[in-house]
Amino acid sequence: MTDPQLDQPWHVAGREFTSRLLVGTGKYRDLEETAAAVAASGAEIVTFAVRRTNLGQDADAPNLLDAVSPERYTLLPNTAGCYTASDAVRTCKLARELLDGHNLVKLEVLGDDRTLYPNVVETLKAADELVRDGFDVMVYTSDDPIVARELENRGCKAVMPLGSLIGSGHGLLNPASLRLILENATVPVLVDAGIGTASDAALAMEMGCAGVLMNSAIAHARHPVVMAGAMRKAIEAGREAFLAERMPRRAYAQASSPTQGLINE
Amino acid sequence: MTDPQLDQPWHVAGREFTSRLLVGTGKYRDLEETAAAVAASGAEIVTFAVRRTNLGQDADAPNLLDAVSPERYTLLPNTAGCYTASDAVRTCKLARELLDGHNLVKLEVLGDDRTLYPNVVETLKAADELVRDGFDVMVYTSDDPIVARELENRGCKAVMPLGSLIGSGHGLLNPASLRLILENATVPVLVDAGIGTASDAALAMEMGCAGVLMNSAIAHARHPVVMAGAMRKAIEAGREAFLAERMPRRAYAQASSPTQGLINE
Amino acid sequence: MTDPQLDQPWHVAGREFTSRLLVGTGKYRDLEETAAAVAASGAEIVTFAVRRTNLGQDADAPNLLDAVSPERYTLLPNTAGCYTASDAVRTCKLARELLDGHNLVKLEVLGDDRTLYPNVVETLKAADELVRDGFDVMVYTSDDPIVARELENRGCKAVMPLGSLIGSGHGLLNPASLRLILENATVPVLVDAGIGTASDAALAMEMGCAGVLMNSAIAHARHPVVMAGAMRKAIEAGREAFLAERMPRRAYAQASSPTQGLINE
Amino acid sequence: MTDPQLDQPWHVAGREFTSRLLVGTGKYRDLEETAAAVAASGAEIVTFAVRRTNLGQDADAPNLLDAVSPERYTLLPNTAGCYTASDAVRTCKLARELLDGHNLVKLEVLGDDRTLYPNVVETLKAADELVRDGFDVMVYTSDDPIVARELENRGCKAVMPLGSLIGSGHGLLNPASLRLILENATVPVLVDAGIGTASDAALAMEMGCAGVLMNSAIAHARHPVVMAGAMRKAIEAGREAFLAERMPRRAYAQASSPTQGLINE
Repeated sequence: MTDPQLDQPWHVAGREFTSRLLVGTGKYRDLEETAAAVAASGAEIVTFAVRRTNLGQDADAPNLLDAVSPERYTLLPNTAGCYTASDAVRTCKLARELLDGHNLVKLEVLGDDRTLYPNVVETLKAADELVRDGFDVMVYTSDDPIVARELENRGCKAVMPLGSLIGSGHGLLNPASLRLILENATVPVLVDAGIGTASDAALAMEMGCAGVLMNSAIAHARHPVVMAGAMRKAIEAGREAFLAERMPRRAYAQASSPTQGLINE
Repeated sequence: MTDPQLDQPWHVAGREFTSRLLVGTGKYRDLEETAAAVAASGAEIVTFAVRRTNLGQDADAPNLLDAVSPERYTLLPNTAGCYTASDAVRTCKLARELLDGHNLVKLEVLGDDRTLYPNVVETLKAADELVRDGFDVMVYTSDDPIVARELENRGCKAVMPLGSLIGSGHGLLNPASLRLILENATVPVLVDAGIGTASDAALAMEMGCAGVLMNSAIAHARHPVVMAGAMRKAIEAGREAFLAERMPRRAYAQASSPTQGLINE
Repeated sequence: MTDPQLDQPWHVAGREFTSRLLVGTGKYRDLEETAAAVAASGAEIVTFAVRRTNLGQDADAPNLLDAVSPERYTLLPNTAGCYTASDAVRTCKLARELLDGHNLVKLEVLGDDRTLYPNVVETLKAADELVRDGFDVMVYTSDDPIVARELENRGCKAVMPLGSLIGSGHGLLNPASLRLILENATVPVLVDAGIGTASDAALAMEMGCAGVLMNSAIAHARHPVVMAGAMRKAIEAGREAFLAERMPRRAYAQASSPTQGLINE
Repeated sequence: MTDPQLDQPWHVAGREFTSRLLVGTGKYRDLEETAAAVAASGAEIVTFAVRRTNLGQDADAPNLLDAVSPERYTLLPNTAGCYTASDAVRTCKLARELLDGHNLVKLEVLGDDRTLYPNVVETLKAADELVRDGFDVMVYTSDDPIVARELENRGCKAVMPLGSLIGSGHGLLNPASLRLILENATVPVLVDAGIGTASDAALAMEMGCAGVLMNSAIAHARHPVVMAGAMRKAIEAGREAFLAERMPRRAYAQASSPTQGLINE
């Protein structure tokens, strides 16, 4: 048995990517820190909240596009802050307009502003509309495997279940549910929300996720740029461990070799 | 606040190391695979069971030193297979003789051959004797914080608690005990035993361990060389995440920014 | 501070109950074992799958009502085996007919026959119809707090999230999600599915659930009647622990009393 | 297969007991609360710290024996507050004197006053001396299975590993280690320390422990007497669940019955 080739690129909506770490742009001190952290993360896809981000509409305020160049990164406008399907759809259309026809979006429709847990009913409704309207939809959702399958059935290009609540840093609270989603999905599955530190990200990748999206874990670390680099390696480590296929767990220890025939006895 | 400098080297017994991943040499298909995996791991310290390893005593058998050159690696002879203090001490002396006065050893005295759990009473006894005899002792032990402190008091140069049983791949079963050890130790603490996959290794480093020693997790992966590379990155990711200081965990989600004053409304 | 009074009865749909353990009737060897286990459990509410149960339609087969008397127990017909809202609604109507107008039902609409995970979209649809049609609906659902709230908004009388997959025995895989549901609910919340053993049931009650419904944990234990008794006590223990309000968790030990002034020194 | 008989009594040092819940007497508001909680717990064995307890030496202070009558309960003097073998041995001898030759003791030798983690080396030393001196020793220890076996070999009558730190309420932090102890022991194994709430106690019993000793979990609950009753039931529930032999865990759900041949279709 030969070792697998180095990792292959992954694809979503006809686009090809090497990096499996997707990052957000919120919660940083300023755009300079945003730019430095994004660069250190090695991310190729960068997401931003359409409703909270200046892409030039306000000529006097800092413009995200100066920090995160659309030439260098694939921008992923998201619908953070939307609590209904219609709000989310309207927000996606606004993004498409601001970005000259860009149709790759991250859909999120939230259930309340305390937990930011997704509202899956409204999410399904918005996904339907967006797909019909020609958007390529990557979709934030709960860890419900039936909803995940349904989102895929309705034409979403990637399914993005939470690990735990947005901004909570609790990691993967229910790996069993994530596993059910992974077993059934034919589109990329990416963990979106809940990652707190490097081992959380590695674990998601070891389970077979195509990628991980995070924001707070980097932006709210004491040293965001250092954490961005840590996450880059953690994602690669987890991916390679998945490809390497981990050792089986055993109830009891195994000595390194037979205890008979010790050389130096 | 400026970001911390890149990681500093760590020290044990007056020696300086950059890599924080220590690897074993057992359980591989052949010495060629051993050499490839060790190289891919980036390890600087390589451990081997004195009682099971040919360092040239048997001129007709493969010699570990051909695969793992003492010029390139710091060899760490260990006492795997020893169940009493006297056996372990004798084994260390044999190693010193075979390696021309090399006095850095990994002491392990095991409790039984089913669990390979350490016998801490015999370990303390052996540590005493070895320290008196001029050895630099890195010591495999349980996750008992009082025993760990006592081993340090008796002059051990590094304390190496298990994460879970040797060869079990269950990761860190009791992080709370490991934390107690880390809080008190003034010598390096390295997790030795139990690591199963990359996220386990990252987690140990995030907690503040100086390093991690592993063997089965690499050797018993389906693709050992790939896993060795994954572990190298996981250790670095976990170390950098520790230096970056992770975000606090929160009970509830936090939106990326205030929901007032959305730009595009 | 005086101790709380003994536990109060709980209510659902205008009915009052003392026992907080609800049990199923499937998977037993025969109706005699069913009857013995149900009796040992102390349950007052007993659920059965309408589509799999003979209530007398087949005069030649054993009749559940002979084992579980409607005079002694509150029967809770459920829609196990239904994968669409319309199937579930039809099944509830059939139950109402068979049971002479009985309108308390447990709604479950499943997503697939491998996981039996709920289909929350179809569940919401069925709940709407059933409530409009005058049913008192206790509803099996995922651990999604937004869906749980929505089911309550649509008039369900009790919300019954899974602990883990039906029949899996994995206990509460995501207590954090269950806690979100409990924080918001104004109707009784009962864990339905996933309980494997007594401590699982106690844990659900300690979190503040109004009750727990189980079937496999009793029926698939080696000694179902003994397990039924164990579960009865576990539910009471967990409820009383909830009322007693547990000690806070502490990072470090606390000695039983000051170490100064020891009497016998 | 018939159901197992009701639970049998258990034995330690030739004494027979029915209750498997052992309780401490410290940390209560006053002796009246102590007495009420002990009574509600159903405990037959009650432990107290010899060095902190007035058994009549101080005629003007409240006497524990008035609250916990030696006629009704088996007293278990313990060596809490002792940090060396010699202190612990001296304390046991004092207890024997105060209690007219009573020779059943709970040995604990602590490692430091912050964690109250056991010092297993000193504990082994004290156990040796006490056994030689005719004491029946129940011994508090870590979850180290090799030390537990050694304590049994030296003649201890019961082995009492911690679940987590004394007074921490974290429950069983390392069930895998506890399982190793249970697999090897031929004397009763009781969890001593760390229990926080009812489900923790049930879990310990489900694993096959002979009993559980606790103090803070009852005394530091908001309503100690209610918690004492909860613990009584939790211990019985866990014991009965152990005897009933729990259902196997399954990766996937199992429907209650075949989906073919539904009666009402």
